Amino acid sequence: MPVNVPTYASLFAEHARRLSQTHLRTLIPDPARGARLRHRDGPLLLDLSRQKLDVPALDALGAQLEASGWQAARDAMFAGDAINTSEGRAVLHTALRAGGSAMPSPAPVGARRDIEATLERIAELVDAIHDGRQEALGLPGTVTDVVNIGIGGSDLGPRLAVAALAPFRTPRVRSHFLTNVDGQAAYDLIRALDPRTTLVVMVSKTFTTQETLLNGNVLRGWIGEAYGGDERAVARHFLAVSANTEVAGGWGVPLRQIFPMWDFVGGRYSLWSAVGLSLALAIGMPGFRAVLAGGARMDDHFRSAPWQENLPALLALTEIWNRDVLGYPSRAVVPYADLLADLPSYLQQLEMESLGKSVTPQGAPVGQPTVPVVWGSVGTNAQHAYFQALHQGTEVVPLDLIGIVNPAHPLHGNHDALLSNLLAQAAALALGKTTEEALAENPAGGPALAAQRTFPGDRPSSVILLDALTPESLGALIALYEHKVFLLGHLWGINAFDQWGVELGKSIARQILPALRGEASDVPPLDAATCALIDEIRQRRT
Amino acid sequence: MPVNVPTYASLFAEHARRLSQTHLRTLIPDPARGARLRHRDGPLLLDLSRQKLDVPALDALGAQLEASGWQAARDAMFAGDAINTSEGRAVLHTALRAGGSAMPSPAPVGARRDIEATLERIAELVDAIHDGRQEALGLPGTVTDVVNIGIGGSDLGPRLAVAALAPFRTPRVRSHFLTNVDGQAAYDLIRALDPRTTLVVMVSKTFTTQETLLNGNVLRGWIGEAYGGDERAVARHFLAVSANTEVAGGWGVPLRQIFPMWDFVGGRYSLWSAVGLSLALAIGMPGFRAVLAGGARMDDHFRSAPWQENLPALLALTEIWNRDVLGYPSRAVVPYADLLADLPSYLQQLEMESLGKSVTPQGAPVGQPTVPVVWGSVGTNAQHAYFQALHQGTEVVPLDLIGIVNPAHPLHGNHDALLSNLLAQAAALALGKTTEEALAENPAGGPALAAQRTFPGDRPSSVILLDALTPESLGALIALYEHKVFLLGHLWGINAFDQWGVELGKSIARQILPALRGEASDVPPLDAATCALIDEIRQRRT
Repeated sequence: MPVNVPTYASLFAEHARRLSQTHLRTLIPDPARGARLRHRDGPLLLDLSRQKLDVPALDALGAQLEASGWQAARDAMFAGDAINTSEGRAVLHTALRAGGSAMPSPAPVGARRDIEATLERIAELVDAIHDGRQEALGLPGTVTDVVNIGIGGSDLGPRLAVAALAPFRTPRVRSHFLTNVDGQAAYDLIRALDPRTTLVVMVSKTFTTQETLLNGNVLRGWIGEAYGGDERAVARHFLAVSANTEVAGGWGVPLRQIFPMWDFVGGRYSLWSAVGLSLALAIGMPGFRAVLAGGARMDDHFRSAPWQENLPALLALTEIWNRDVLGYPSRAVVPYADLLADLPSYLQQLEMESLGKSVTPQGAPVGQPTVPVVWGSVGTNAQHAYFQALHQGTEVVPLDLIGIVNPAHPLHGNHDALLSNLLAQAAALALGKTTEEALAENPAGGPALAAQRTFPGDRPSSVILLDALTPESLGALIALYEHKVFLLGHLWGINAFDQWGVELGKSIARQILPALRGEASDVPPLDAATCALIDEIRQRRT
Repeated sequence: MPVNVPTYASLFAEHARRLSQTHLRTLIPDPARGARLRHRDGPLLLDLSRQKLDVPALDALGAQLEASGWQAARDAMFAGDAINTSEGRAVLHTALRAGGSAMPSPAPVGARRDIEATLERIAELVDAIHDGRQEALGLPGTVTDVVNIGIGGSDLGPRLAVAALAPFRTPRVRSHFLTNVDGQAAYDLIRALDPRTTLVVMVSKTFTTQETLLNGNVLRGWIGEAYGGDERAVARHFLAVSANTEVAGGWGVPLRQIFPMWDFVGGRYSLWSAVGLSLALAIGMPGFRAVLAGGARMDDHFRSAPWQENLPALLALTEIWNRDVLGYPSRAVVPYADLLADLPSYLQQLEMESLGKSVTPQGAPVGQPTVPVVWGSVGTNAQHAYFQALHQGTEVVPLDLIGIVNPAHPLHGNHDALLSNLLAQAAALALGKTTEEALAENPAGGPALAAQRTFPGDRPSSVILLDALTPESLGALIALYEHKVFLLGHLWGINAFDQWGVELGKSIARQILPALRGEASDVPPLDAATCALIDEIRQRRT
């Protein structure tokens, strides 16, 4: 949004002023709230009734969304228009799951054909490994462990889904994720696994990612040792997922073991593509297709529901409200589910890499805050760590609290305690406790202690409940956030599908590496602070 | 700080105004910065030269610290004064490690005697298990696995240290941490372990923590099944760390298997006490004593160094500057070390639970922002996730970047790449890239693309380098942050040692649990939003 366009803060200032005079304690009993702020699609319930909104404010936000042309923008994405303008690319992660959709796909036929063919190749591989027939495909006779080597979007999606769907895992193979260039991870992994029964999946769109290649080299050397350097034997242990077949092949992955990535799918939207290979290997092809179907179900909902019932639209409008109107700089994601422990990291990337921008595609300043800091961790652990600050600190942090109605284990006593805590935190944050209440509870403590035991309340949260954590509901949950991100990019007038901000650090790292090694180099001189630390490091090396 | 006291923002406004006109690009080359902003104590180097400070601003901050009476406040803590005023308690976590100090301890003799006696009991137990002699102490004849059951401060410290010091672990026992009341964790654990060779350490100061007791009950039942319900056999498998010997004993832990916690040690400061039992079991007693010695070394530094060279003081002043003067609402902690993956969570609790307050011990509003949101994760992974927003988003996020000079593994190629990335991110955030530079790199892209490839820079970070990750350096690193937190509590005029903000949610959860179960209850009626979600959950239960 160029600087001369009104900001959301100014557009909705009157609503914010009105609501600043009413505590959530007073808003919550309004029976109209539930019908407008609590909505279900399939296995997902979204409850916004503890957001600091009322029906007039919500209607004003919705009117702004309607005036923005969001349906046309959405349809352009599904149809494959080149909405990633800075790279001139289509954005077709929805096409990856269109096979599970009840609505006709508007995606280009060529893309859909490539996607279906790749799914069939994945199915062939996964089914072969699950049946122990993979030697016929040129792979090792025994496969006990699969190592996914990738970083960012080539890691976070499969990592999240493999962990979340642990109760659906096949016992056939164990899954591992090697991500960081920190050699500790690679070193620990190769001491724990058997090189002769390990299958490595190298995931890198360009096949030039520094971290992935360094770790791939370590594993290639380790497997090579087991075969006395026989390169053909080593090659049987490597799969690749990459858009750069030539470089992947040159590195040592046979062509038939390379699965495609496409320019029309960004890394952080790629779980649904061959990047999900590790997931498909972990839970089998029916499970993987169920994840796709869950995403497709949310696509259909996003494409068909009016904004008043449209879950991604409601989540996006809530974020505009909290971020731009009320001015809250961060949002916490707290799943009350150990299986969803990786969800905060996943959403951190999805939201912050997509929306951490401050200029429009035309190069103008956005002129208002864009993505908040997204952070969080599982409850109830979080309650015993940082919830003190959420209740009584000086900063208001809106939360997404995510719960599972039916657990995948039989310990119902634990599960009831878990859910009661989720509900209690949402209530405590919203309602608070007045100084008078605190004093009445403990008159002997006096007013100073009562002030320290006061909770301001009036702090917003959203609750998302999944009927159960299944491949379908996980797919729907991820797609819900994807579409929220899409709408925020639209509403802020930024490109949610590029990531120019990761380039500068990479190029400086290439200049620093030779200096750190004491190698001569013709790069431009480094800054004084960097030189000082390089000296410190070189002096302290043992 | 009561509302009529000047805020730090107003006190230092002139320095902020002056510095707002100079980019970090211009500040960094000043050769005076290094000497004032880069300091070492033992194995730790702290580099603040990329903070948006100059020498006059730093001196003004230091003068304010000196005027605050920080040395007297510090000495009162070390001496055991009841500085936790809302609970009337001393704060003596430093006494737990005073045995490793080169300076005489001013802590009360009684506390020091109890601490030393407990350390001897821990040593007896740990040495016995490491020598396989624990049956003589009434424990099982074979111990292969140790499960720490605790949450918050009874979990995060030992969890961090056991992971960070993995290269120092003894092969004698495997360590596990059971935390969340989510039954999935307990369920997965009991399917993976052998009940006859598992030792459980129950850690709860009150021995009433809901999560810990529910998980303890699950493990007690599981071990009980293995022994046909023989309670004496079961009791051999349980240790407790608790201030409430009576309740722990009644629950089933024999008295001689209960280790003390004290009122003068808060949960989030308790790694150095018997709460560190799981750590001592993992790395052995010499390693545990080395962690204590590392903390003691930082205590000596904190007690003796002038503010200009005092690492905790410099970190605290930097936070006052970033939080209150420049107004940044969050800080990211990014260790470039997989072994330190739990450090952001640990510091999140240490800082946000200690400093997430908004009233003074006298009950007056603090009148300015206190703790920022503390978040983060390991690099380089983070670079491929949310660093886009740190470089190009609308929110400035100061960072703590933490690196290890000498790794514990032989993969030096990986390690050089890791460190070069750490240095490069600090440089890129500080220096940025102008639109002119972006345009010169790619003139064909035109000004719109150049604007999207521009980096504002001028974004602050601190770098902490450890010579190596050892028990000593880890102890020093944790104590550094503890003392930073202490000073911030002092400077903000809040009690860093209570946590009243965790109470309200707990009491509401107790009201919700019976309603969720459909049990009759005489608690006050719940709010409309909570009732609606309880109905949804009950309808969706299968």
